[in-house]
Amino acid sequence: MAWDTEKTKTLLLDAATQEFCTFGLAGARVDRIASIAGVNKERIYQYFGKKDELFGIVLARQLAFVMDEVQITGSGVDAVVDYASRVFDYQVRHPELARLTFWEGLERSEPTALEARQAGAAGKVVRLREALPALSEDDARELLLTILTLADGWQVLPNMDRIYTDTIERDARRDAARKRIVLLAIEALTRELVKP
Amino acid sequence: MAWDTEKTKTLLLDAATQEFCTFGLAGARVDRIASIAGVNKERIYQYFGKKDELFGIVLARQLAFVMDEVQITGSGVDAVVDYASRVFDYQVRHPELARLTFWEGLERSEPTALEARQAGAAGKVVRLREALPALSEDDARELLLTILTLADGWQVLPNMDRIYTDTIERDARRDAARKRIVLLAIEALTRELVKP
Repeated sequence: MAWDTEKTKTLLLDAATQEFCTFGLAGARVDRIASIAGVNKERIYQYFGKKDELFGIVLARQLAFVMDEVQITGSGVDAVVDYASRVFDYQVRHPELARLTFWEGLERSEPTALEARQAGAAGKVVRLREALPALSEDDARELLLTILTLADGWQVLPNMDRIYTDTIERDARRDAARKRIVLLAIEALTRELVKP
Repeated sequence: MAWDTEKTKTLLLDAATQEFCTFGLAGARVDRIASIAGVNKERIYQYFGKKDELFGIVLARQLAFVMDEVQITGSGVDAVVDYASRVFDYQVRHPELARLTFWEGLERSEPTALEARQAGAAGKVVRLREALPALSEDDARELLLTILTLADGWQVLPNMDRIYTDTIERDARRDAARKRIVLLAIEALTRELVKP
């Protein structure tokens, strides 16, 4: 049977994603990633380099998934709210993205894959301003960061969540309440920013 | 010279705060904390117990500082915005609080000092509803969590910050722009929540 390099890489990246999500960059163990994937550890170094390079590749891959799946469509304030809504849903379905982002924030002083991500961000800023031309470039940048900070933060703070809202309701209703709050904030903020 | 227990405890807690902020719970080293404080390591176990107990004490102490310093005063929407403004300023001045909170979110499945923090949160909910009686209890809880998630998240995502806003302006102006965005979101959200 021929060696299936792409399949092996995917197995390793999936295992590495779980490992980094759970333990972060410093706490992750290359041995454990190899063992979960059922692949020899040497392949990891061969395909992806050292542990911090692997972390960068894992995060960039997750970011490419979300960039691909969640795009700004349509125009007007509603388009921004709809985008925020889909960012929120994506983060709920893929908590690993927010965890990786916050591990990076805590553990690395330099962003992973800075240039590619800045290019991605610049593209979103352009798209957001096409949807809502009254938005200044600076406000568009801050608004995108607000959407991501709100959607990400809630995924990574289960303990704060429990402290503040444990008395409220169970998971599904809580997600709905939370999403409503995020969308109210983003809609109100967006209207405020584009007010003549 | 008499042994000054309180001073030694403060030295150790300050050193532990820096260590946990930088390395998180798993990455922190008790040896390093003792060395930074210039105190024998055995004192740490004697005064505070094991590393995870020390982490709980450090986080609870930082939370007590912010609870004490930043309170909801006055009434109406303006009081909520003013509170959010002071929460934001506090987080900028004390980035260690947000870092500890996010390390906890990533590294611990159970909150530290849950009961004390739930009691603190319940007190804030009561105070928020005194300031703004039209707010339901559930909405008051979610609104507090929104304020904290927004203010905390921005402190812990310097890399996202750099990706989205590196092209904008230097630190002081950026803090001002960010604070304006947070307050616009919180004011608009609060008005929306109390709308008859």
